[in-house]
Amino acid sequence: MSLNRYPQGINVLIVGASGGIGLAFTRQLLAEDKVERVFATHRESSSMTDLRGLKQEYPEKLALLSLDITQESQVAAIAKKIGEQVKRLHLVINCVGILHDGDFQPEKSLRQIQPENLLRYFEINSIGAILLVKHLIPLLKHPERSILATISAKIGSIGDNQIGGWYGYRASKAALNMFLRTAAIEYKRTSPQTIMVMLHPGTTDTELSKPFQRNVPPEKLFDRDRTATQLLEVLDQLTEKDSGEFFSWDGSRLPW
Amino acid sequence: MSLNRYPQGINVLIVGASGGIGLAFTRQLLAEDKVERVFATHRESSSMTDLRGLKQEYPEKLALLSLDITQESQVAAIAKKIGEQVKRLHLVINCVGILHDGDFQPEKSLRQIQPENLLRYFEINSIGAILLVKHLIPLLKHPERSILATISAKIGSIGDNQIGGWYGYRASKAALNMFLRTAAIEYKRTSPQTIMVMLHPGTTDTELSKPFQRNVPPEKLFDRDRTATQLLEVLDQLTEKDSGEFFSWDGSRLPW
Repeated sequence: MSLNRYPQGINVLIVGASGGIGLAFTRQLLAEDKVERVFATHRESSSMTDLRGLKQEYPEKLALLSLDITQESQVAAIAKKIGEQVKRLHLVINCVGILHDGDFQPEKSLRQIQPENLLRYFEINSIGAILLVKHLIPLLKHPERSILATISAKIGSIGDNQIGGWYGYRASKAALNMFLRTAAIEYKRTSPQTIMVMLHPGTTDTELSKPFQRNVPPEKLFDRDRTATQLLEVLDQLTEKDSGEFFSWDGSRLPW
Repeated sequence: MSLNRYPQGINVLIVGASGGIGLAFTRQLLAEDKVERVFATHRESSSMTDLRGLKQEYPEKLALLSLDITQESQVAAIAKKIGEQVKRLHLVINCVGILHDGDFQPEKSLRQIQPENLLRYFEINSIGAILLVKHLIPLLKHPERSILATISAKIGSIGDNQIGGWYGYRASKAALNMFLRTAAIEYKRTSPQTIMVMLHPGTTDTELSKPFQRNVPPEKLFDRDRTATQLLEVLDQLTEKDSGEFFSWDGSRLPW
């Protein structure tokens, strides 16, 4: 399928795997012969029905790990735990992100801005992602191909912003893009074979987009399996020079 | 000087006026005949020596206000207080920003990242600025020319990032740029004469840049008065179509 540039026997980590795009990645990568181990994280509180089903199907290949990426101690513990089982990670995809959660909703206008909500966006969407990079980089620095990808969003492009609104979500994704690009620049020197990228998945039929799908034409609303397939194809095309860049689901580069 | 497009009798607000570029703006604007009132904010804890001197010189024209922009209640209270004294603000310049503070230092590498420091960068450099916009916009929405400018930094340009490092500062300025651009888009519809911009001051000889001036050639290190003059000239050139953009001290546009 789309792991052409990888050797046989790779280890992957999907962060935020209990639903949405993360679950689709997990399912597709488990089915790949080239993949030796899949580590999949979920929050303590998340529904585990689908992940448990996969665990029954792949009892050896799949390892489930509980992780809240806003807690650095948990991120460090996960990295340690994975490092005890495998020496190398070849692909990490961070699918954790928040747009809404009950009363917590994206701001339609400036008046709806609340500092505690903005902080929550930054904690989960931006800081969590760079904490992952900080603790996983020792497992990604090795002579084989390795990719750390994180789901960003075109709506986090400052230059592409046309309609305003969604202040916290937009700013947290712009900050995420800056964090990841900065890390990519730092590791280009010492670990050029480690590729870090940000991905825009397109609007995908998940819990995150559900309240906002009304104006999305059906051909632009992807099911999660299609999104995962498309993004794995984008990752397959990447070479070292692409590290630090921001890609759309169709492989095109997005503006900052 | 550089208030050519303004009518006589304008009211200005400088946020973060106790030192650095904010103090230079305050001094220069107090000397302008066109300016009727100058509101200047400082933190409770900041040294007030220079501001107190100016207050003696301009007892009527200058109003000093205590403000911590991370506290929304204080931002709201300041807006109320100013609104009781003047009906309109014509120019607001937010000069508040943090790069270092004692043990709190910008990260030289990914390993130095600490979530609580990242949150502090976002709280002061990004969230504080958008809270100002939220509460000051009623005073800026009027038929005369009005500008809300905030000091950003070229180092907050994602596209311009070449050398990495300074994760929190970079990301907080990228988030700031997104916040302000989003607000500019929102108010273009209902208040097109209100211009919101982000400014890169160039490296200026202030407490903020002091530990990092070693590699700056002398002709590229501006004193604060020169920076304030240059930025006021940039603001003077602005027209409505410039709202939501990111300008350098020489008037050129910066990439996101």
